[in-house]
Amino acid sequence: MLFAKLTSAHIEEISKIVDSASYTVNQEELEKYGKDETEDLLFLPEIVVKPTNTDQISLLLKYCNEHHIPVTPRGGGTGLSGAALPIYGGLLLSMEKFNNILSIDTENLQATVEPGVITEVFMNAVEEKGLFYPVDPSSKGSCFIGGNVAHGSGGPRVVKYGTIREYILNLEVVLPNGDIIWTGANTLKYASGYNLTQLLIGSEGTLGIVTKIVTKLIPKPQQNVLMLGSFLSNEAACAAVSAIFRAGVTPSALEFMERRGVEWVIEFDDIKFDLKPEIEAFLMIEIDGNDLDEIFKNCEVINSVLEQNGCTEVLFADTAQQKEDIWRMRRTMAESVKSNSIYKEEDTVVPRAALPKLINGIKQIGIKYGFESVCYGHAGDGNLHINIIKGGMSDEDWNEKLKFGIVEIFELTVALGGTISGEHGIGYVQKDYMSIKYSPIHIQLMKGIKSIFDPNGILNPGKIF
Amino acid sequence: MLFAKLTSAHIEEISKIVDSASYTVNQEELEKYGKDETEDLLFLPEIVVKPTNTDQISLLLKYCNEHHIPVTPRGGGTGLSGAALPIYGGLLLSMEKFNNILSIDTENLQATVEPGVITEVFMNAVEEKGLFYPVDPSSKGSCFIGGNVAHGSGGPRVVKYGTIREYILNLEVVLPNGDIIWTGANTLKYASGYNLTQLLIGSEGTLGIVTKIVTKLIPKPQQNVLMLGSFLSNEAACAAVSAIFRAGVTPSALEFMERRGVEWVIEFDDIKFDLKPEIEAFLMIEIDGNDLDEIFKNCEVINSVLEQNGCTEVLFADTAQQKEDIWRMRRTMAESVKSNSIYKEEDTVVPRAALPKLINGIKQIGIKYGFESVCYGHAGDGNLHINIIKGGMSDEDWNEKLKFGIVEIFELTVALGGTISGEHGIGYVQKDYMSIKYSPIHIQLMKGIKSIFDPNGILNPGKIF
Repeated sequence: MLFAKLTSAHIEEISKIVDSASYTVNQEELEKYGKDETEDLLFLPEIVVKPTNTDQISLLLKYCNEHHIPVTPRGGGTGLSGAALPIYGGLLLSMEKFNNILSIDTENLQATVEPGVITEVFMNAVEEKGLFYPVDPSSKGSCFIGGNVAHGSGGPRVVKYGTIREYILNLEVVLPNGDIIWTGANTLKYASGYNLTQLLIGSEGTLGIVTKIVTKLIPKPQQNVLMLGSFLSNEAACAAVSAIFRAGVTPSALEFMERRGVEWVIEFDDIKFDLKPEIEAFLMIEIDGNDLDEIFKNCEVINSVLEQNGCTEVLFADTAQQKEDIWRMRRTMAESVKSNSIYKEEDTVVPRAALPKLINGIKQIGIKYGFESVCYGHAGDGNLHINIIKGGMSDEDWNEKLKFGIVEIFELTVALGGTISGEHGIGYVQKDYMSIKYSPIHIQLMKGIKSIFDPNGILNPGKIF
Repeated sequence: MLFAKLTSAHIEEISKIVDSASYTVNQEELEKYGKDETEDLLFLPEIVVKPTNTDQISLLLKYCNEHHIPVTPRGGGTGLSGAALPIYGGLLLSMEKFNNILSIDTENLQATVEPGVITEVFMNAVEEKGLFYPVDPSSKGSCFIGGNVAHGSGGPRVVKYGTIREYILNLEVVLPNGDIIWTGANTLKYASGYNLTQLLIGSEGTLGIVTKIVTKLIPKPQQNVLMLGSFLSNEAACAAVSAIFRAGVTPSALEFMERRGVEWVIEFDDIKFDLKPEIEAFLMIEIDGNDLDEIFKNCEVINSVLEQNGCTEVLFADTAQQKEDIWRMRRTMAESVKSNSIYKEEDTVVPRAALPKLINGIKQIGIKYGFESVCYGHAGDGNLHINIIKGGMSDEDWNEKLKFGIVEIFELTVALGGTISGEHGIGYVQKDYMSIKYSPIHIQLMKGIKSIFDPNGILNPGKIF
């Protein structure tokens, strides 16, 4: 791809579009915006721009499109696939000043929000109105809702409430040529031509810049109970997952944690937890609703399923503090594991009954290639995050051999009916694996769609394909 | 658009692809496949082909693509926007022989089904396994699930369970050049490049032919209660709709019926119902779940909301027969109304709190243009079906003046944050109204996507745009 390098003339033109506090070429700032949460990657942008309104973005894109300057949009910078890294330099478009909740409409159970609002801030604002926005990625405290849209984000509650796809009604989007459209309507149904809203969700900032988001909200469930089941093997824990659904219960969260992850959380996060020596895996199960009696009935069903599936102990978290501790264990696991070693994270997803085969296969592949892995994730969705740990692996093996192991993991995932990312996206680090999942015809269709929206290829180049 | 007219040479080549019982050029058959449930429209295809497997469809499309023969896919023929009408003649591709349920996977709560399976047949097969596929359009007894995918179908249970979009995991699709792809993966999450599954849903057979469908299934709710609330005005009934959700309850169906619709059902369908003279509108409210106590608690909440919102009487349907009678009233309303007069049906959808303004506006526009309308629909989703009745309107007014009234209805709908079709699609009869909702830029994007999938424009030409 041939892009223009930024000249002082370019910078001068860009500076006319935004005010002086809304762009920078300071080296320290460029470095800050040159990385996200993906491994230890760094790609410097040539300028960081922080626009404050849609018209500015329209002018910026129009200018960059005409001058072939790559534009990389960035949300909270919490991405795990490098989708926000400006790998061709150019303009880094930080959405951090789009941080207003424009309305929470309690008549229609909808909200209109800017993409730079932190997900948890939005969730809390909604809850203050007695409503619920259930899409809570583990990074909810720092990720932006715009980034969630870009990745089609999930989180623990997908298992009952669905991904962000089911909550986004309409998007205001700036196209690469500066045109502004609304993708859909503020309605719960939409059968009026191709669904551009759904196409934009998960497109990782490669088709347009989202500037407003209309979400669906739902009534907030009033009660929940949290259970933690202990298992003697990963496989037993994974096998219990699909048994729970077969018993007719849909938990509001169903998370898997491997022993090694729990050990590292205890070490890193100073969480008090009595980790018995024989326990290899945990399932964390939340059941929510408005009626405690019904929730307890569901707990009993789950309890009996767990017992029949090799669970040795079930802990019921009754108090808010107990619940918070267990949730924190799960939420800080990624950080804890990663603080210990150089790592790579994969985001496999399979039909949930295939989880035992997946986790067994991962461990076998690890033995073959000499890597350790720590797995955890949204087991209720069949979504397993695999943290591959460098540990004692040689630099040569890590840099050369490991990728063949990852290929084998993805081949297994796809063979089990799954795909190579459930919620982290393809971005920069997974794009080499796309051919494991997709035929050339399929990838050609995606590239064709890209060319319709962005004929000059300026928007987030080098991602997905 | 320039398409080839079918010659005997074409027919001979097509006949080599399928067996002799799977195609016809018989005039009576051509007429049968030249209409659907949309008004009284008729467009004759030149040949009707009923393939039995994906490879045949691949060969048929490849041949038609090379010879510029238009191909119009057809499901159950129950469409209300004329999307299955072969308006340029050519090959009518009936999917009726794709009528196998390939698997119901009770481990993963998924099913794989061919597109020619009747929706209700599929629902019943799923229920026999104790599971639930909640997408039940009113035409469920005769529509095909493939048609439902093509239109992004809804039905009464969308209000709690979502549209078909939330249940389709993966699609096998034949592209116009004969290539075959799977659009996604058999997983509950998917963040692996552009979501072609979601793009195909609602694309009305213009991008590819769906040949296999993988659906999500959920546990079947064990209990439900049905309530029927009577109101003195349409507006009062519509205003009560959003009040129910604001009270924190999500019904599994929330349907609006205008008095005139009920009158015609009573006349047409011989349903016994004590229709009080002062009653102008009804809300039919179903609450489902597994726990009758919790359901009754929700009924009490709803009952109190209804009382506060001008509901004069609430009927609780206790027995299966009572429930069936009320559902039948709603389900046969379309047919009853339409059996009385020439009609046009519009499928407006707005944010639900805007329903009172929408229904008032429709009646005002009707007075202005001299038409009567009968409205009913999925009020919980803000989705109102408007049946415009010719009645005493002159042919000239019907053919010339009415369309300006429809334009006003759609302008109102869009001004209220809505769109011109909630679940019936654009097809042939609504395409002239697309510019009310969409800017030229937006339509150009849709046409661009079409050109990527179908550069020769052979698939269902003359629809949507």
